[in-house]
Amino acid sequence: MPLSTISIIGLGLIGGSLALAAKNSGVTVHAWDIDQSTRDDARNHGVQVHETLADIFSQETEIVVLAVPLKHMAETLLKVAQQVSPDVTVTDVGSVKGSVLRAAREAGLGAQFVGAHPMAGTEESGFMAAQPKLFLGATWAVTPQQNCEQQHVVQVLRMITHVFHGRALVLDADTHDQAVAHVSHVPHVLAHALLNSVQHSSIRSIAERLAAGSFRDGTRVARGNPQRNYAMIADNRAAVVPVLDNLIEDLIVLKEALGEEHSGSARAFFAGELLSREAAEQPERLVLGETWLDDVMDMGSAGRLVVHVADVESSERGRIVVDYA
Amino acid sequence: MPLSTISIIGLGLIGGSLALAAKNSGVTVHAWDIDQSTRDDARNHGVQVHETLADIFSQETEIVVLAVPLKHMAETLLKVAQQVSPDVTVTDVGSVKGSVLRAAREAGLGAQFVGAHPMAGTEESGFMAAQPKLFLGATWAVTPQQNCEQQHVVQVLRMITHVFHGRALVLDADTHDQAVAHVSHVPHVLAHALLNSVQHSSIRSIAERLAAGSFRDGTRVARGNPQRNYAMIADNRAAVVPVLDNLIEDLIVLKEALGEEHSGSARAFFAGELLSREAAEQPERLVLGETWLDDVMDMGSAGRLVVHVADVESSERGRIVVDYA
Repeated sequence: MPLSTISIIGLGLIGGSLALAAKNSGVTVHAWDIDQSTRDDARNHGVQVHETLADIFSQETEIVVLAVPLKHMAETLLKVAQQVSPDVTVTDVGSVKGSVLRAAREAGLGAQFVGAHPMAGTEESGFMAAQPKLFLGATWAVTPQQNCEQQHVVQVLRMITHVFHGRALVLDADTHDQAVAHVSHVPHVLAHALLNSVQHSSIRSIAERLAAGSFRDGTRVARGNPQRNYAMIADNRAAVVPVLDNLIEDLIVLKEALGEEHSGSARAFFAGELLSREAAEQPERLVLGETWLDDVMDMGSAGRLVVHVADVESSERGRIVVDYA
Repeated sequence: MPLSTISIIGLGLIGGSLALAAKNSGVTVHAWDIDQSTRDDARNHGVQVHETLADIFSQETEIVVLAVPLKHMAETLLKVAQQVSPDVTVTDVGSVKGSVLRAAREAGLGAQFVGAHPMAGTEESGFMAAQPKLFLGATWAVTPQQNCEQQHVVQVLRMITHVFHGRALVLDADTHDQAVAHVSHVPHVLAHALLNSVQHSSIRSIAERLAAGSFRDGTRVARGNPQRNYAMIADNRAAVVPVLDNLIEDLIVLKEALGEEHSGSARAFFAGELLSREAAEQPERLVLGETWLDDVMDMGSAGRLVVHVADVESSERGRIVVDYA
């Protein structure tokens, strides 16, 4: 059963891009943003925007996506919980998952809330920076809760694969938060550290004149929205700090090794590599049964990506098949 | 007087790109590389390649560009010094300048050697990765020695602006080495640290699955030639280590500040910015006189970029004008 209506709360870079993409996918979009001029901008780009949050909930919708800043997530979840019916799926697109899942449980949305995090973005922000193709082909992290109902997890997978043409990695919130500390939050920290290093240099002006590719790429994500970067990193501090600790230790080892001739530690520092995924994985299909949540989590732990979700077309009606790339 | 012949020693990514660019500029190129298959590749791409280093010096040439790896610079300078005539300019394109200038002086090339460093590149290496447009519009650092003759500095500026269509920032070797520690070497160190951090993680496979733009950009320069990265950073360790020390200190301050609510230090960490150069500088012209070297160095200290060099067309024959953007 395809998804035909989606509600999006928050129309910044992320929510705005999702609203435009959903509209292009032929899905009915109900949207709202707290900011009047953002609502006007989105309307001018053909998005069906309502004047109040309550208006969203007077519409028929299958899934509500919270795309508000992390600092407003808890209060927004409380407001949503007061108005949403239990058969509607609630999800979010925040870059930290543990704190959002806790807030959803505290708001009483445990069974119908499934966390999500699309792994794409730009250093820009606001609706006017939104792009309908920002998430095309992106990998999304999906973090179900323990007591989550199957229909809501399936609805989120359907939204990601059918509406946004992405792929989903299902995992628990703690693993997500550790992983994004590594591949997103600490890269943001290092980009800011690099910018600071030049800014505080006595030869700043000369250094910036000579800056080229490695500095441009190394600082790109620091040249965006510092408040947003600070908020996501502070919110995930429990996962970020241990990664930073190890990284600082690694830098100290390198620094000392640079003093030695032909240092093994220095050579080892420069020898890091990414995993090779050359041995292509075979497509795999899961039919959701009794142990569906464990099965889906196991596939995620193995790094497998959901690319399609469908109802079983047979006598076993009501069952769902999940396809992995 | 335009430059009409150039000799290039070493035909990897940098030397190969320069050879192709010089050829496209209509300059006669004499080239050599220690590796037979590299010589063949360059010949197949239309570069005039000689079989031995000595063959290069049997040709008429105005400038010799050393584009060999840093670890081979000292021995190459010695060989060049034995064969090159004193009126030929010798320059290099190495990413560290203090050690190269010392090696040039020790080889007896003090008066005719001018260091240079084009601020562009890719994470690839070898002639087959060479691109004739790699340095188009690039900023080059130019590091003259104290006792350097004017004609050789002018020749290098002419090569950069007329042959390679770049811009030149003239500065002393120490300032160069500090500046590139900030904007190139430490960015390379951080890219490797980031790669190592994920590689040593217990959730490496999951983390790499979720890696997107910030990780890709943050590690780009670490996914190239680790030996080359190690060599340039080790060679510039005197400038790299103090920058790393400050950066590590900055990371430690952030890490501790992340534990506090609404921390001023944490907010300050994320508030770094690049210099605004909106107040456009006026073009300026320098006529080289008695104090030419001081004048040129002063313009460089002010961050001014050489964009054109010419002989004065008037009775003051033999004098040179340098134009700044």
